[in-house]
Amino acid sequence: MADFSIGVDLGGTNLRIATVSTDGQLLEKVTLGTKTALGPNHVISEMCDAIRQLSEKYQKEGKFLGAGVGIPGIVDLNTGMLRKSANLSGFEEYPVRTEIERRLGIQKNGARVVLENDANVAALGEQWLGAARGVPNMAVVTLGTGIGGGIVLGGKIWHGMNGMAGEYGHVTLEPEGVPCGCGNRGCAERYASASAILRMAKEAIAAGEAPALAKAASSDPEFGAQSIYNLAMRGDEPSRRIFRTFGRYLGIMLAGIVNVLNLDMYVLGGGVSPAWDAFAPTMFDELRARSLVYAATAPDNALMADSRKEAAALVQKESITARKTIITRALLGSDAGLYGAARVAVLSS
Amino acid sequence: MADFSIGVDLGGTNLRIATVSTDGQLLEKVTLGTKTALGPNHVISEMCDAIRQLSEKYQKEGKFLGAGVGIPGIVDLNTGMLRKSANLSGFEEYPVRTEIERRLGIQKNGARVVLENDANVAALGEQWLGAARGVPNMAVVTLGTGIGGGIVLGGKIWHGMNGMAGEYGHVTLEPEGVPCGCGNRGCAERYASASAILRMAKEAIAAGEAPALAKAASSDPEFGAQSIYNLAMRGDEPSRRIFRTFGRYLGIMLAGIVNVLNLDMYVLGGGVSPAWDAFAPTMFDELRARSLVYAATAPDNALMADSRKEAAALVQKESITARKTIITRALLGSDAGLYGAARVAVLSS
Repeated sequence: MADFSIGVDLGGTNLRIATVSTDGQLLEKVTLGTKTALGPNHVISEMCDAIRQLSEKYQKEGKFLGAGVGIPGIVDLNTGMLRKSANLSGFEEYPVRTEIERRLGIQKNGARVVLENDANVAALGEQWLGAARGVPNMAVVTLGTGIGGGIVLGGKIWHGMNGMAGEYGHVTLEPEGVPCGCGNRGCAERYASASAILRMAKEAIAAGEAPALAKAASSDPEFGAQSIYNLAMRGDEPSRRIFRTFGRYLGIMLAGIVNVLNLDMYVLGGGVSPAWDAFAPTMFDELRARSLVYAATAPDNALMADSRKEAAALVQKESITARKTIITRALLGSDAGLYGAARVAVLSS
Repeated sequence: MADFSIGVDLGGTNLRIATVSTDGQLLEKVTLGTKTALGPNHVISEMCDAIRQLSEKYQKEGKFLGAGVGIPGIVDLNTGMLRKSANLSGFEEYPVRTEIERRLGIQKNGARVVLENDANVAALGEQWLGAARGVPNMAVVTLGTGIGGGIVLGGKIWHGMNGMAGEYGHVTLEPEGVPCGCGNRGCAERYASASAILRMAKEAIAAGEAPALAKAASSDPEFGAQSIYNLAMRGDEPSRRIFRTFGRYLGIMLAGIVNVLNLDMYVLGGGVSPAWDAFAPTMFDELRARSLVYAATAPDNALMADSRKEAAALVQKESITARKTIITRALLGSDAGLYGAARVAVLSS
């Protein structure tokens, strides 16, 4: 018997809703498609139906404390509205939090609805139950199509002045580098993301330097970062080189963050993070060379253990007791956001 | 009648000790030379004599709450020892805090001695009484021979895991750039510090591109960043170009910090900060182009007012009420560290 909250991951493709007890058990998870084409009213109705069903189902187990909703975009924490979102068109002018509260009649029973950026809840999830369990100050770097980021300080999400903190993806790494959609040149996510991997592969193919990549690109309709990783793992040198470059720039980015923030732990998540073996060596090389803070606090072992659970236990110990700077992989995968969203509802209640 | 604490600025050249009331009045300031050649015992004795005299003199006015000591170097907050200092040789193995407490008999009367990094106390000083008065989350960037940094979150110094936070000076801006003493290449302080200005001037002179600089360098025995600034203000184009480059790299560095931290205010202090007019235009250009967080939150006016006090009042208002990201100049000069050191003793008592 434990009280519980509900975590929601409102993505551009999937809408996932989970009941999570306050002691961190995922009791039930529902996955729906996000029918953005039908508009925010429809999506929020489906979400609220699921929240209501789950909260009623588990109310005999404990008290329903509230719902946290992770959303890809910039959330206005005061109004509970989305200020900007690339993946949820039509939501920008929609009063998301108010509508959820209204449909659930939630203000009456004391529970709370909290809207939060998806990278922030993923960070909180990893801090609560994942790779950084028990580590008070940490950051998550999400390596996906772009680079997302969340920072947790003292066990709470660091929002910055207006919820925009953690924009690592647009830190300049090469002042005269590759143009970015944000208007800048040389942003981190032009070098250390899935789309950067694809760009580098296309460039290598165009230069005639990568026959295996060229073959895969022309024969595989789903050619992408995963295919390039597979080739790298099979020893294809041009593919390996791409991941080394990825690691190099990720290391430069992390070195800067480590120098500025001096956190206990940096957790790498997102779709590219399983390619750890291919990019981690150059990443650690750059960290040691470019961050005097990292060099002074690096753990003795490289922490590249195969067993993620074992590594996590080790790094938590190193971080907490030995004051070492730990760079490691996320543990919870896409559930990090669900756990974190559920957690944020409890923390703010 | 107000209680008071004592702030100490223990620099490599000067040892300054000030009595500061809890309401922010600097009651008295003593400046001594730091006789590092005579060893830490001697320096700490002189410091303690001055602290004792000042605390006794003002004890009729209010209660002596403690002393804060700002030191250039990495301070171990647990032991109160210096872990590393470039300017105070011989202090690394010396139990600074314990020795001060012992000499002042300070544990008996309930007052406290706090050791703190000098850039951190400067940040706290500007946040308490300077450019960022009333602004909870801010950072100071000290533009001197190198680049120092301090971060204040929620009105308190952000130390990071082991006191090393705020090392902006060694953030990589050019991956293949100018070698730095830290072992890295392309560190910020190789491009946006007094020594960087001098390096660029020497390079321009060696290339035969800067006749006025060459003349000044050969005739002025104290040729340095100040002389180059004077030439820039008199319209010398090679000198102006150096400050534009300085501003460009400072802007790139700040853009990264703004993207990651999303603070309310960034305060530029240190010996080069009075050259604001020469470097601020390119700095703001880069900030707007390279930080989507800054672009979304930049104030309408450029905030380059001549009157520092007026500008400070304006920026505080903008930062606090309009949620604008403010980049501005420090107000307190070298006294920031004294105020902050006095403050840190009160905050931790």
